[in-house]
Amino acid sequence: MTVRIGVLGGSGYTGRELLRILARHEGVEVTFATSRSAVGDPTPIPRLRFTEADLERAEDLDALFLCLPHGAAAEWVQALPEGPRIIDLTADHRPGSGRESAAVYGLAELNADEVAGARLVANPGCYPTGVIGALRPLLDEELVDRDRLVVVNAASGVTGAGRTPRTDLLFAEVEANFRAYGEGNRHRHLREMRALLEGTSLLFQPHLLPVSRGILETIIVPVPEGVGPEAIRAAWEERYGTEGAVRVRERRLPELRDVVGTDLLALGAAAVDGIDPPVVTVVAALDNLGKGAAGQAVQNFNRMFGLPANQALRLSPP
Amino acid sequence: MTVRIGVLGGSGYTGRELLRILARHEGVEVTFATSRSAVGDPTPIPRLRFTEADLERAEDLDALFLCLPHGAAAEWVQALPEGPRIIDLTADHRPGSGRESAAVYGLAELNADEVAGARLVANPGCYPTGVIGALRPLLDEELVDRDRLVVVNAASGVTGAGRTPRTDLLFAEVEANFRAYGEGNRHRHLREMRALLEGTSLLFQPHLLPVSRGILETIIVPVPEGVGPEAIRAAWEERYGTEGAVRVRERRLPELRDVVGTDLLALGAAAVDGIDPPVVTVVAALDNLGKGAAGQAVQNFNRMFGLPANQALRLSPP
Amino acid sequence: MTVRIGVLGGSGYTGRELLRILARHEGVEVTFATSRSAVGDPTPIPRLRFTEADLERAEDLDALFLCLPHGAAAEWVQALPEGPRIIDLTADHRPGSGRESAAVYGLAELNADEVAGARLVANPGCYPTGVIGALRPLLDEELVDRDRLVVVNAASGVTGAGRTPRTDLLFAEVEANFRAYGEGNRHRHLREMRALLEGTSLLFQPHLLPVSRGILETIIVPVPEGVGPEAIRAAWEERYGTEGAVRVRERRLPELRDVVGTDLLALGAAAVDGIDPPVVTVVAALDNLGKGAAGQAVQNFNRMFGLPANQALRLSPP
Amino acid sequence: MTVRIGVLGGSGYTGRELLRILARHEGVEVTFATSRSAVGDPTPIPRLRFTEADLERAEDLDALFLCLPHGAAAEWVQALPEGPRIIDLTADHRPGSGRESAAVYGLAELNADEVAGARLVANPGCYPTGVIGALRPLLDEELVDRDRLVVVNAASGVTGAGRTPRTDLLFAEVEANFRAYGEGNRHRHLREMRALLEGTSLLFQPHLLPVSRGILETIIVPVPEGVGPEAIRAAWEERYGTEGAVRVRERRLPELRDVVGTDLLALGAAAVDGIDPPVVTVVAALDNLGKGAAGQAVQNFNRMFGLPANQALRLSPP
Repeated sequence: MTVRIGVLGGSGYTGRELLRILARHEGVEVTFATSRSAVGDPTPIPRLRFTEADLERAEDLDALFLCLPHGAAAEWVQALPEGPRIIDLTADHRPGSGRESAAVYGLAELNADEVAGARLVANPGCYPTGVIGALRPLLDEELVDRDRLVVVNAASGVTGAGRTPRTDLLFAEVEANFRAYGEGNRHRHLREMRALLEGTSLLFQPHLLPVSRGILETIIVPVPEGVGPEAIRAAWEERYGTEGAVRVRERRLPELRDVVGTDLLALGAAAVDGIDPPVVTVVAALDNLGKGAAGQAVQNFNRMFGLPANQALRLSPP
Repeated sequence: MTVRIGVLGGSGYTGRELLRILARHEGVEVTFATSRSAVGDPTPIPRLRFTEADLERAEDLDALFLCLPHGAAAEWVQALPEGPRIIDLTADHRPGSGRESAAVYGLAELNADEVAGARLVANPGCYPTGVIGALRPLLDEELVDRDRLVVVNAASGVTGAGRTPRTDLLFAEVEANFRAYGEGNRHRHLREMRALLEGTSLLFQPHLLPVSRGILETIIVPVPEGVGPEAIRAAWEERYGTEGAVRVRERRLPELRDVVGTDLLALGAAAVDGIDPPVVTVVAALDNLGKGAAGQAVQNFNRMFGLPANQALRLSPP
Repeated sequence: MTVRIGVLGGSGYTGRELLRILARHEGVEVTFATSRSAVGDPTPIPRLRFTEADLERAEDLDALFLCLPHGAAAEWVQALPEGPRIIDLTADHRPGSGRESAAVYGLAELNADEVAGARLVANPGCYPTGVIGALRPLLDEELVDRDRLVVVNAASGVTGAGRTPRTDLLFAEVEANFRAYGEGNRHRHLREMRALLEGTSLLFQPHLLPVSRGILETIIVPVPEGVGPEAIRAAWEERYGTEGAVRVRERRLPELRDVVGTDLLALGAAAVDGIDPPVVTVVAALDNLGKGAAGQAVQNFNRMFGLPANQALRLSPP
Repeated sequence: MTVRIGVLGGSGYTGRELLRILARHEGVEVTFATSRSAVGDPTPIPRLRFTEADLERAEDLDALFLCLPHGAAAEWVQALPEGPRIIDLTADHRPGSGRESAAVYGLAELNADEVAGARLVANPGCYPTGVIGALRPLLDEELVDRDRLVVVNAASGVTGAGRTPRTDLLFAEVEANFRAYGEGNRHRHLREMRALLEGTSLLFQPHLLPVSRGILETIIVPVPEGVGPEAIRAAWEERYGTEGAVRVRERRLPELRDVVGTDLLALGAAAVDGIDPPVVTVVAALDNLGKGAAGQAVQNFNRMFGLPANQALRLSPP
């Protein structure tokens, strides 16, 4: 059986990444990919060119991926025919959006069973994938001291900001620079993190890196007396196993190059001496276009259609 | 009067930066600059070439800058003749080194009077310059809640690691990467920070940026109820004024490009909503080779010899 | 005497560079700098903010710099009052524009006397400054074999393309890439080069580098039998001397880092063995924003107003 | 049948790239990979760690790849037992080495039949792969005017210089820089190019790019009257077809990002107006670690062992 797929909004960074992954996915057929700005241009799928969006073509589909600007997906979902199951890569149906009840949250490893049966999956944001992926198992195992603040310092490459031209994303503005943004706990991804980590006091401070891709999140986790990195790694391994898209590093903390070009989330933990009450340093690394967007979308797709969990995913660096 | 200067170890990144600043400094004469690896090569000083180190030549000097590998300066200081006053850019005489009693700590703005009379100045480390420069005035004004943890996430360009060839500093290893290091509060600069910020619980987590120069330190400061960014900026302005090498940004947080190529320390603060007990986000930015090393050394030199405080310093981006 | 200056179009890369140079220029007063996109923002000149363009304010000026989009300067020149002398940094009055008769071509070293008396100076393009600066003295000394093709392979940083947002100038598009453009001898700067190098058969192939600033031009020069790099360097030194903004490198070819952040044009030549008929490899390096634009504009300004030739110019790397 | 493989010198950039390709190659077993500096470290092959070199282990092999420093491979080849067929990625057996008679030159597309039967294949250099791959078909079709000079301006990423620490390859030395090297036709790859392009007058000028990977070669080809880019593309397509690792671009010239991370050689040609006698601009692009080294080695391996020509090769960007 070939699963018939459409992609709305395929010419941005996320959309192209998704199409590259789908081009390697055996057993799927991408019947169309739309774009407002690149109609007629070739896509990463052989012999497929970008077309304008057309609701009628969605009727014959099994699955539809939405890689639209935030805000545009909700309208499409309402207008669409009943047929295809939908993976929405925008923020429109994520927790905190006000529309989350219509969708299953697709953090693939935490929500596998619900994803399998979902008609509409809200694909997680890039930053939340790392933060929630790292902290949710620790909260469940009572390895976080909820009375103290969890500090997340995150840094992302520029493709996280999309491909629409903006002065502050020009090469000459980004190169040789590094800066904080969304300061004061104002990043729009916080709603999503808080919804999934309820009861945690969270400070999330993102920064812009002079790299194209990749997210590194350094998380200072307040822990109960006696909890160290071993217990944290054990909780992750218990939850995620060793065969999926989440990898726990034992020897050293993960870094950007471990994950750029992959669909992995890499996690690590390090002991901190001499701090009382105690904390542990946790690092989460992922490719914002891979596990942070298109890769996780394909993971969710695989579950929705009963395909092998890792099919077409990139589980080691290129 | 021309001040006669010698530079020991002038061919590394810090030494060359120092020589470039001194080349613009009117009223000084650099009589020699030594190097182990670049003897005979031209220096940034017109008509001066690197020579081998020679104790006897130090006798005629007014001032000697030590840009040696950490550990080598202490030996030199003991062997040197009585004559020259010394600015030591290594860690050998910094607080926590065990030799700090022999030197005055040269965080120029905090210690101006003692520096003026010092025979031996321990020039601060690059990371400590930002952390101490940001926090010391806040501690003095009781704007920090000492019962809670101060979290410093820092990121530095690669020249901070020196110019000796190492695989992990090669272009192809650093480019497109970002990584934490010194995890678990193990960076050697912590001794220095703790000595100057006694009584503060401090977590310092450095990262390596894919840039040549510059340090950005994002500091989550626990504050007493009612303390916000305005009070913090006021404390800095009170301490530092507006004419020196420390600049308080009002409108936005400082970023790397505000300071790279300068001898400035830029400070900013942002309110954080919805965290209880309260915190404020502080950002310190400096060039690790400027205010973080050679620029501050020249500031100290200016004070030691009664020269204008900002002479030869670069107080705006190139 | 203070020279009163206005800048039209000061918020692009060239305009800001010009304002940074003028901020260091003693004896000038920048009375206004205009911008369409940044009205109200601070300029690099202390206490000066960008304003909208206003013809009337030009009346009181001694000098006006035009850093406008190509095409817009010609209109302004016609509309302007008689008063100020004009340095036009656009292509509008360069050789080959059809309007060159109205202006003096300001390749500062080649045309010093005419520049001194000019009312309107056409500031050269960035690529032509290197190519003409390298080749014009060689042609004058009969060191080029005009029967054969001169091949120029040039590479430029992205600020050469301006600061208006374009997808192809985004960080994620430029980083880790390198590409030829303007292939087939179609770059608009060719007219200017040909006008100044008449009788030379020229192939000019530019490329886009993943750097912010700087141009390197590798020129394969067909030479008469017996002509080598020594004769070429001698011709340059004869023409340019050793004190100005053109520097001849003896020991090695110039590279980008020799000139980025400066107002220098660096030239070098290397012998080529085993090619018959003979050629010499010439390399010209300059900062497209320095000697390639704003730096040369200030050089021309200095001559027009009888100021020291190098005033405010940056003649060594920062 | 599983082909048993060994890799000597697997921890440099080329060796690791080779191991990554082999990790995806079905039907091969890598039994060992050696390293002088990384013994005990993990390789890109699951469950395989680097070991010291051991001649005896080579006896059981079907194939041995040599990724050694230039000069070391020739000794190994003499000392090795008769068993394995060898792909030598060093320069030791390439044309012009003096040892070329012992080996078949493995420019895969030009020499397929000989490679299939070879015991020892000399894998081509990175620069020669592009230059020879572009020009050899044109020479064979009489599309090059041999009386005039072919000018090759080449630019390469830094992994081409290997992974041994050197000051000039440090991040802070390469970033924001661009420079010519090997000037005067002195690059060691010229012997190889000349041997394969006999009778052509060739000027080869390489440059170092601030990127990790990738080579772009801009070749000014003197052509007979009436020859244009169409004839050139036709000659390439005739020689290379459309299914292999050489791709002819029709619409635009190839750029670095078309090939980085692939095992492709991309070729393009552009008409040049107004030059007499005529020339055509040709651009060749390849990844120095892919088609320029490890990818081509696997291509040769596939032919030697009768495997599908493109097995494990990366024929589109990641």
